[in-house]
Amino acid sequence: MDGSNSLSSELKLQVRKLEKSDKSKGFIELLQQLTVCDSVSDKEFEERFQEISSYGNDHLICVIEDDRSGKIIATGSLFIEKKFIRNCGKVGHIEDVVVDSTARGQQLGKKIIGFLTDHAHSMGCYKVILDCSVENKAFYEKCGFKQKEIQMVKYFS
Amino acid sequence: MDGSNSLSSELKLQVRKLEKSDKSKGFIELLQQLTVCDSVSDKEFEERFQEISSYGNDHLICVIEDDRSGKIIATGSLFIEKKFIRNCGKVGHIEDVVVDSTARGQQLGKKIIGFLTDHAHSMGCYKVILDCSVENKAFYEKCGFKQKEIQMVKYFS
Repeated sequence: MDGSNSLSSELKLQVRKLEKSDKSKGFIELLQQLTVCDSVSDKEFEERFQEISSYGNDHLICVIEDDRSGKIIATGSLFIEKKFIRNCGKVGHIEDVVVDSTARGQQLGKKIIGFLTDHAHSMGCYKVILDCSVENKAFYEKCGFKQKEIQMVKYFS
Repeated sequence: MDGSNSLSSELKLQVRKLEKSDKSKGFIELLQQLTVCDSVSDKEFEERFQEISSYGNDHLICVIEDDRSGKIIATGSLFIEKKFIRNCGKVGHIEDVVVDSTARGQQLGKKIIGFLTDHAHSMGCYKVILDCSVENKAFYEKCGFKQKEIQMVKYFS
């Protein structure tokens, strides 16, 4: 691969917003690498896509598409919470970050986190937070995050 | 205090939704016990109140008012995140829980958490999550929560 090909290959791994057509590009299959996610029908996908889109810039899902394979190989989500504390401040919450198991080692996770963090900053958030496993702590530290609290959970099903 | 007074005193500590008039009942001063929260103007409060109200049942702030003093003595917030994972599942996020320092020991925190958790359940969430300090872990365990992950944070200001 010469220099120009290498450049164009790099350009092809840009972060962009989720689009409706990404369902047929393996978006749900990618999420299945993260957690329980049975197949989602086109109708269910479209309804949820519309619901999330209705929040505009307050709920952003981004993806990286591999133009060579036409597959979505990384994704992450950010939604913005509006508070009264911190002088009616806003907080960005990062959720559901996953990089395809065959595409690791290309800093795609870092790109996703950078994109979502920049968005939170540009939206006027005073901080951005996320929950992760202890195993992923070092990765998020490399992205500029610090451990603060602990996450508690209650499951209904 | 006889039995009926005691009963009526209990009835007065019901959890309800935040109302606009709660600003004049010490709502912001209560939040100041939690974290940085300078005084908020009536205009700022009203704008943020409207923004949050526009999410309907997807963002609920609840309070407990002490009818004897007319003061808000406990509050907590829940917003609902819409996901693609878990078959287009929903997650409830609890934030900004605080009980007035003079009103501790009356299980008001537990009432707030119960109210928000029930709301998340009724809205179809598959789980409810929150971040807390290690010191507050035992309280949330009494509310039926379990520790799961760690919280990472990046501050912009």
